[in-house]
Amino acid sequence: MTDRPIVRLRPKADARRIRWGFPWIRSDELVLDRRTKALPAGSIVDLEDAERTPLATVALTPASRLPARVLDAPGTEIDADWISARLARAAVMRDRLYDRPFYRLAHAEADGLPGVIVDRFGDTAVIQPNAAWAEVRIDDFVTALRDLGIDRIVKSASGRARAAEGLDDVSETLVGEMDGPIPVEMNGATYFADLTGGQKTGLFYDQRPNHAFVARLSRGARVLDVFSHVGGFALAALAGGAQSAVAVDGSAAALDLARRGAEVGGVSDRFETRRSDAFDAMADLAGETFDVVIADPPAFAPSKSALTNGLRAYERVARLAAALVAPGGYLTLCSCSHAAGLEKFRAASIRGIGRAGRGAQILRTGGAGPDHPIHPQLGESGYLKALTFRLF
Amino acid sequence: MTDRPIVRLRPKADARRIRWGFPWIRSDELVLDRRTKALPAGSIVDLEDAERTPLATVALTPASRLPARVLDAPGTEIDADWISARLARAAVMRDRLYDRPFYRLAHAEADGLPGVIVDRFGDTAVIQPNAAWAEVRIDDFVTALRDLGIDRIVKSASGRARAAEGLDDVSETLVGEMDGPIPVEMNGATYFADLTGGQKTGLFYDQRPNHAFVARLSRGARVLDVFSHVGGFALAALAGGAQSAVAVDGSAAALDLARRGAEVGGVSDRFETRRSDAFDAMADLAGETFDVVIADPPAFAPSKSALTNGLRAYERVARLAAALVAPGGYLTLCSCSHAAGLEKFRAASIRGIGRAGRGAQILRTGGAGPDHPIHPQLGESGYLKALTFRLF
Repeated sequence: MTDRPIVRLRPKADARRIRWGFPWIRSDELVLDRRTKALPAGSIVDLEDAERTPLATVALTPASRLPARVLDAPGTEIDADWISARLARAAVMRDRLYDRPFYRLAHAEADGLPGVIVDRFGDTAVIQPNAAWAEVRIDDFVTALRDLGIDRIVKSASGRARAAEGLDDVSETLVGEMDGPIPVEMNGATYFADLTGGQKTGLFYDQRPNHAFVARLSRGARVLDVFSHVGGFALAALAGGAQSAVAVDGSAAALDLARRGAEVGGVSDRFETRRSDAFDAMADLAGETFDVVIADPPAFAPSKSALTNGLRAYERVARLAAALVAPGGYLTLCSCSHAAGLEKFRAASIRGIGRAGRGAQILRTGGAGPDHPIHPQLGESGYLKALTFRLF
Repeated sequence: MTDRPIVRLRPKADARRIRWGFPWIRSDELVLDRRTKALPAGSIVDLEDAERTPLATVALTPASRLPARVLDAPGTEIDADWISARLARAAVMRDRLYDRPFYRLAHAEADGLPGVIVDRFGDTAVIQPNAAWAEVRIDDFVTALRDLGIDRIVKSASGRARAAEGLDDVSETLVGEMDGPIPVEMNGATYFADLTGGQKTGLFYDQRPNHAFVARLSRGARVLDVFSHVGGFALAALAGGAQSAVAVDGSAAALDLARRGAEVGGVSDRFETRRSDAFDAMADLAGETFDVVIADPPAFAPSKSALTNGLRAYERVARLAAALVAPGGYLTLCSCSHAAGLEKFRAASIRGIGRAGRGAQILRTGGAGPDHPIHPQLGESGYLKALTFRLF
């Protein structure tokens, strides 16, 4: 079909998985002979099973633990048009769901773009090419994004997966100029995103539906947002009519952005920030109560080996936060740990609430918004969990 | 503390579970001596552990497989005020979340009212007293509901759990008069609920957030709602701006109510109903495509023994429905089977979509709305699953 290089599955590898749509081929499943190993990272090649039946068009990075990732059906040309079509297809769904173009535009494998994340902030986009095939085709991505009306493009190279693909960690502005944090509207609130100085971009799009639910609960409420980052839950709650909101975070830079969002949103008079370790802050607040409390900590269980300690940390957050919820009030607990699945995280949260001596009901189990779709064969990519409890 | 009867856990029973909030005591965990067995169904008694330490105030139905259900802390008087306070507490949460009083007001154990379900439709309520303690106190419930501004009350005795509690299946109107189906507004659509003639009341409140999401996807779309009942998804989609919607159901009565809702909502010209077996209808439609397809079948796996066949049926629904989705369109698959957990249901759905030869991404995993809270110790009460896919 094409004169491209061909790579083959080893006889023991399960070709049916690939036929059924699984997008990854491990190094022990692939024939990695000298010829294959010599192909440059990011090559587009054809994958065949051991009987030489074509399986897929794949992106190849021979030295990676996941040397081949499925892009499309066998024999598909992966050119500028293909990249443009994939991004346009992704945009159609987002534009249907969101009134304005502020969303995660491309969510890697689930959007048929392995390793590629694009967050859109109006006329600005941040692209994370976390796989070599995308890095070497970055110009095609830039062209496609410009065709979507985006005229400032930042490349973020902070993704941990890049090293495994043999890529550097040098971020840069590819198109236009960034002149400081930019305003982002979501759920009626204004946030500020620092796309070049922040540790992580598009950090808060994933929580959008969970922000919205907490905002609905927050009319007239006194709200405490622990691990607030740039004020995700607190500013949404204020936009939803909260009486007051306190944001606690260890990062002065994040709290500065939160205050700036509150000013632009006209809610500064109801907003307070406290720079503090979140555990210390919760201990300091003991005795006070709030109608709505949110705790959205960093990933305590980023890997399987960290799971036991991570779950203990989630339990501790739940216990400390529950003690700060007024009777009949609401507690939202979040986890962005891949390793802590929903059931384990829920159990840890319920244990913590019980240790605080509180009765509870679970009102809602939320995940990331639909601009963070999940690949059907990669269920574990549903990393974000947000549980809302009512406490008695 | 009280001069009420006392019942005791057997020495081998796990009292810690009760202390941690588990609300059910099985018959093999309880000392069921002649004195206890002689207590009338629905008695309020004190529960102690085998060492005579008070554990809880419980409702007792000695002949049931779950003879004791926790109501409150030890020594609590369960009178009209207590019932009123529990219902008021439940109402506070719903009134915070919903602009108008159309919701499930009480969701049994999760709302601290074991076995009691109340659905509110404005000034009308349907109560399902599926436990003897509530049946014998029905007058207190009526008084409490009237205090909340409800002036028509229907008692539904169709719950399957009633037989185990020794209760009859005679439904009746307790307060006011029902004069036909009543209009229910939800997500901008109008539905008609037949509270005395229908098989099941409040059937659709649980799907509210899932209706809302499908409505957002449906602007300008051609929509197919299979197993539509009274038009839950179809009418929400039309209210959300769908170009057209077809509702398929086997029940003429349900489709009559759906058409009545469409008329009152002013969307009749875009709405079509087809009375048919849903599987037959999907086979008949083969070759046509829709932008948005929803399949919300009855519980195919109501019990563990029905699980294998049930999952096969869900897979078949997914396969037939996926074939009717236009490229880039959206498919929402629902299950209300307790026995088919989220992972099994998702796997069956993905298999069916794969068998239809379609690629997919998972956009959203939805459950019942927050007016159907979950008891933290009864995770399995999260029976409703709604998965929205985009298909390529």
